[in-house]
Amino acid sequence: MKLPSLKEAFAAVEERLMAVVETDVLTLEEASQHIISSGGKRVRPQLLLLSYAACGGTTPMQAVDLAAAVEMVHTATLVHDDINDHSDFRRGKMAVHKRWGRTFALLAGDFLFTKVYELMAPYGNPFNVMMADACVKLVEGETLQAHAAKTGEIDRETYKKIIARKTASLFEVGARMGAAFAGATEATVEAFRQYGYNLGMAFQIVDDILDVIGDPEALGKPVGLDVAQNRGVMVAEGGVAVMGGNGHTAVAELPDEDPVKRMMIRMRESGAIELARMQAIELAERAREALSAVPASPAKEELLGLVDLVVDRTM
Amino acid sequence: MKLPSLKEAFAAVEERLMAVVETDVLTLEEASQHIISSGGKRVRPQLLLLSYAACGGTTPMQAVDLAAAVEMVHTATLVHDDINDHSDFRRGKMAVHKRWGRTFALLAGDFLFTKVYELMAPYGNPFNVMMADACVKLVEGETLQAHAAKTGEIDRETYKKIIARKTASLFEVGARMGAAFAGATEATVEAFRQYGYNLGMAFQIVDDILDVIGDPEALGKPVGLDVAQNRGVMVAEGGVAVMGGNGHTAVAELPDEDPVKRMMIRMRESGAIELARMQAIELAERAREALSAVPASPAKEELLGLVDLVVDRTM
Repeated sequence: MKLPSLKEAFAAVEERLMAVVETDVLTLEEASQHIISSGGKRVRPQLLLLSYAACGGTTPMQAVDLAAAVEMVHTATLVHDDINDHSDFRRGKMAVHKRWGRTFALLAGDFLFTKVYELMAPYGNPFNVMMADACVKLVEGETLQAHAAKTGEIDRETYKKIIARKTASLFEVGARMGAAFAGATEATVEAFRQYGYNLGMAFQIVDDILDVIGDPEALGKPVGLDVAQNRGVMVAEGGVAVMGGNGHTAVAELPDEDPVKRMMIRMRESGAIELARMQAIELAERAREALSAVPASPAKEELLGLVDLVVDRTM
Repeated sequence: MKLPSLKEAFAAVEERLMAVVETDVLTLEEASQHIISSGGKRVRPQLLLLSYAACGGTTPMQAVDLAAAVEMVHTATLVHDDINDHSDFRRGKMAVHKRWGRTFALLAGDFLFTKVYELMAPYGNPFNVMMADACVKLVEGETLQAHAAKTGEIDRETYKKIIARKTASLFEVGARMGAAFAGATEATVEAFRQYGYNLGMAFQIVDDILDVIGDPEALGKPVGLDVAQNRGVMVAEGGVAVMGGNGHTAVAELPDEDPVKRMMIRMRESGAIELARMQAIELAERAREALSAVPASPAKEELLGLVDLVVDRTM
């Protein structure tokens, strides 16, 4: 984010995220700040602040808590996801449940959810209704994914439903709240909602591709975990459905003859990755189109740049 | 609750709780309705609706979602608590994690939290700020308790802090929101806040006493679990501090020579139970006093009756 007025607001989001989790219950503060300070791309708060600016919002400091809230939802889900996925690393750091144990990780995730609520509450009715809806969808999406992983059954329709709820819903609400907070018309808010939705869908498909072909060092986590846990089929949303996987084995420990590695190779060779990438590019194009009626501005340029960044990222 | 106008609202709370968790993600709906329909005393929504009526509120149907929200917070924490406490039964039914597994129980708890948010969001700023604050405190209290259980260290001050946050905070916000929603003055809202706080403190002390001397059949869960998990000292808030316990052993399976059973007997014989009961009675008295300036009404009578019910309950 290069816009000078937003730079300050973005720095304020970082500060707010760290400050809002301060508490005399030290484990909660430490675990929260551990996951928050481990970075991440901060795509969601960027999305919110840029949407706000592109709609003519001139006091981004007032949107800082909204932006912090969308990042906080994401952070809370990471803590609980890592418990359920038995992931030991996150952004190159030890996962919260690995360092503090499952009991405290569960509570730390709950704590971060309550902080979403604390950040949002002062914004009043329409924003809280939008955000509550996104949070509900997110947990539904995670649950559908856990089902698919358990049964090994997934088809294109289910895959789309899962990523729409677990990922796109938060991108959607970020762009939508940014536009609405700037006082945009209903039609403009809807355009930003569509931008956020399509960007989020593209983002998740690229994420699932990176789990198969990404560089573990750049990603700060091992690859193949989704495949190992029956979620490798995620990238099959282009056509090929590859089933199987053996639950919770850590991929790093597996010999080359392992079925997970074999499956990853098969997915690379089957053309599924290429089909998934085409799908992501198509969704990215729809995200760009959604903003076609929005007047040109530096913030709009950044939003279009964000689309390229999401599709071309390697981490 | 006997007041005719509230009876309808109270029935509506039950319906709302069951309806708001409806979703096409069937596991979430089933697990949510399982825990909701297993009953419970519904003290928190009663508290809210009665506080509303005692402050002159005349359209209780409009407070139904507020009342459902406070019960939903409680329900969400039960699901996550049971995971962390390894409790297999709740209200005489199988715990969610026991029936659906830990992954889905964790997600079901998250889902119920998002439904709190959904129920609350339309009420706007002041109510959401109050509720967010209560939710933060609740998770802090649970975490402090987990720490005490882990280290085996607890003193009177810590015990008080734990139950104030994990239990009294929600009673407090229920009474406070009920009064505020009826349009009560600041001083009256404060009186109801104090009523709720003291009632909540008394409620939790009685709960901890029942874990040592209660009837497992009436309670719908085994007794001694808190003692077994190092939380038996909870009832020591009268003087005697009894430490020890051996973690996660199910009491039902223990022989009579077991240290947990021995400790329970020791607590009964040491006078700790009696001291804790005196503390509960004192807090109940403070709850009654908080309402002294509130004009007489059938709802006020019920609120005073609720105090007796809480202190004298056996389940």
